[in-house]
Amino acid sequence: MTKHVVIVGGGFGGLATAQALRRAPVRVTLIDRRNHHLFQPLLYQVATAGLAPSDIAEPIRSVLARQDNAAVRLAEVVGIDRTAKRIELIDKHDAGGPTWLDYDYLVLATGVEHSYFGNDSWAEHAPGLKTIGEALTIRRRILEAFEQAEWVEDADRRRALLTFVVIGAGPTGVELSGAIAEIALSTLRRDFRRVDTREARVLLIEAAPAVLGAFPERLRDSARQQLEELGVEVRTETRVAGVDHAGIVLDSGERVDARTVLWAAGVRGSKLGRTLGVPLDRSGRVPVGHDCSLPDHPEVFVIGDLARFIGPDGEPLPGVAPVASSQGAHVAQCIITDHQGRERSSYRYFDKGSMATIGRSRAVLWSAGLQLGGLVAWLAWVFIHLIFLVTFRNRLLVFLKWAWAWFTYERASRLIWQSELEPSSDEVSAHRSSA
Amino acid sequence: MTKHVVIVGGGFGGLATAQALRRAPVRVTLIDRRNHHLFQPLLYQVATAGLAPSDIAEPIRSVLARQDNAAVRLAEVVGIDRTAKRIELIDKHDAGGPTWLDYDYLVLATGVEHSYFGNDSWAEHAPGLKTIGEALTIRRRILEAFEQAEWVEDADRRRALLTFVVIGAGPTGVELSGAIAEIALSTLRRDFRRVDTREARVLLIEAAPAVLGAFPERLRDSARQQLEELGVEVRTETRVAGVDHAGIVLDSGERVDARTVLWAAGVRGSKLGRTLGVPLDRSGRVPVGHDCSLPDHPEVFVIGDLARFIGPDGEPLPGVAPVASSQGAHVAQCIITDHQGRERSSYRYFDKGSMATIGRSRAVLWSAGLQLGGLVAWLAWVFIHLIFLVTFRNRLLVFLKWAWAWFTYERASRLIWQSELEPSSDEVSAHRSSA
Repeated sequence: MTKHVVIVGGGFGGLATAQALRRAPVRVTLIDRRNHHLFQPLLYQVATAGLAPSDIAEPIRSVLARQDNAAVRLAEVVGIDRTAKRIELIDKHDAGGPTWLDYDYLVLATGVEHSYFGNDSWAEHAPGLKTIGEALTIRRRILEAFEQAEWVEDADRRRALLTFVVIGAGPTGVELSGAIAEIALSTLRRDFRRVDTREARVLLIEAAPAVLGAFPERLRDSARQQLEELGVEVRTETRVAGVDHAGIVLDSGERVDARTVLWAAGVRGSKLGRTLGVPLDRSGRVPVGHDCSLPDHPEVFVIGDLARFIGPDGEPLPGVAPVASSQGAHVAQCIITDHQGRERSSYRYFDKGSMATIGRSRAVLWSAGLQLGGLVAWLAWVFIHLIFLVTFRNRLLVFLKWAWAWFTYERASRLIWQSELEPSSDEVSAHRSSA
Repeated sequence: MTKHVVIVGGGFGGLATAQALRRAPVRVTLIDRRNHHLFQPLLYQVATAGLAPSDIAEPIRSVLARQDNAAVRLAEVVGIDRTAKRIELIDKHDAGGPTWLDYDYLVLATGVEHSYFGNDSWAEHAPGLKTIGEALTIRRRILEAFEQAEWVEDADRRRALLTFVVIGAGPTGVELSGAIAEIALSTLRRDFRRVDTREARVLLIEAAPAVLGAFPERLRDSARQQLEELGVEVRTETRVAGVDHAGIVLDSGERVDARTVLWAAGVRGSKLGRTLGVPLDRSGRVPVGHDCSLPDHPEVFVIGDLARFIGPDGEPLPGVAPVASSQGAHVAQCIITDHQGRERSSYRYFDKGSMATIGRSRAVLWSAGLQLGGLVAWLAWVFIHLIFLVTFRNRLLVFLKWAWAWFTYERASRLIWQSELEPSSDEVSAHRSSA
């Protein structure tokens, strides 16, 4: 009988698995809680009003529309029974109870969630950046802070409104802080009358001694210098002891009043890993064997950010899209190999390099011994991201938006909205009033 | 001293007023509850996944960025004191209490809100289409209905999920029902495996004897025929007696089970009109004099959908964008005329025609005695809307999206999302899990 491959998660890993099984003699069901694949490396651009959500997201259904052996299901997986080889799931927005789905192969690719290191109350005040919903929340907070600063009379309150704190100086933190500084310095400057948006203060806080700790020293220094040129205040070796509605407290006791605090400091394996019943590492990742499967369960694979795969240098592979994609392709190959009665090969990762962008024409890039900073790195970054967007129909539009933004310092998506039917508690309660 | 003109509402009317005062010796403050102007005639395209919100919306601030005598304030007006010539407002998301703002001239352009004819409980089940938030809610409901229909086993439930009811056959209802029929028949067809999206049933319900009642008879018939060609079931002379979570009940007693019900049947003047303390008409509109000002209060103007202005035929002018824009320009002229010590002229509306689009290459158009239906009308509709989008930077992008959608039957913005930090009650409560 045709084997049934169930893939949970429609990110880079899950999608690569499904696509690599296109010609395999299997049935594929891809399950995700959201209907879209997200090009996460550009999500910070949505959070900082440079791109619209649909520029970087595509319905999983339409990516797999022409793949006849693949079905897509909008549902949440709540349990895994490895013995009976079935998973328990709840269809989204369906009044019915959980249902069970049998599998022959299971591929878990559900990625990571934010980790506040035990301080879950910080989440409300310092949103992280993983989903479109979060990106839009961050965008709204940034834009509203400027709107309020324009009309507030009290100098202290205005200073807090114009203070933006980004916690964590990995690639996401660097990209976010650089983009916020750019918005304040150029994009919004002429839109406001009473407030000088250049008064905005952007703080990037990092516990480690350097920004972009995973990069070589020269690029760490370059990134810091480029951030400081943009006006970002970089504070390394600084820990956050508290986050509340008014701002943050550092472990030195210093208090920073800030209306907008963003979290880019930590992630852990997503919840589904904890339901597996296997020992996890400190970051909640699932240790996997040489072929990305679970010990004693060759039919269960874990890939991407959720997996802990020890690389040739003895360190776990980083949680980046290229690892997830290539693991997905490898897992598909294992399934095909099984069918042919041959032995599975081991997964190997070829590191093509890392990059982070800091703003308009600023970036760092590290690949095959090459270390670049500044405009050249930025051009490479733009080029490579456009190529990666190749599976996205919208890549031409994205390119046009970028070109426009580059020449005009404008940002296309500076909208604040909120769904009427799901108002937040701080929404002024009244009907819409506009022509 | 320089006169202070306060404009409430950043729609077509309010924005036209502000822009026409660009060279006038006045200070302008434009107040809106939202930070963006919305090109409302294309909002149904956002609701039906054809366009992204930022394609049809632009921050009011950036529209007025180069107009030095204009300031923009994100706030809600909650009271008007005509005697003291001041308004009471609450800055959005500001913890402070209401503040007062003095005016020399007040221009109210806050438009209309949905009217459920006294059945306010229907609102929850049958959202209308006025704001980006509502458009995204409608988009989510439509797309989720198909997602659920794909996996539901029960035939009755599947039928309800694939039934889409649009109440009200004015231009918005016609556009919405036509677009939903198109999505089901073409766009989504190859995305689904288990459900045939062509089984979807789209009902357009109208109490009057014809669709598009404001159009000439020939075009009413043409519109109905074009809708039926698309597969829309048009039911005229049919009243809705009830709306609940499971569907609608007609006044004949017939029940239609439908997961998705949309409201396009009625509007009334927005709440601010009711705080004015003047008699309103049945639709909650404010009767205004020949110059669009209030009787006895020449310094207070009401324009656009919120105003009841009697045209030369003895009927109130329709609530459409061209009326609002030209009234805005007229009011600005009155203010300038006052300053010059000359007498105000009367407002006159030159009707350039009406149009409604029904789908890909289907529309009706009525202008200067000309009555068109079908492809020619649709091409005219596309052309005119592109021209109107001229103040929007994004018009090239919108055109490209349309061109793409036309040739491929695709829809660019088929995303379902929800803000993480403001979950709705029906959201499955669990963390995000995706690579």
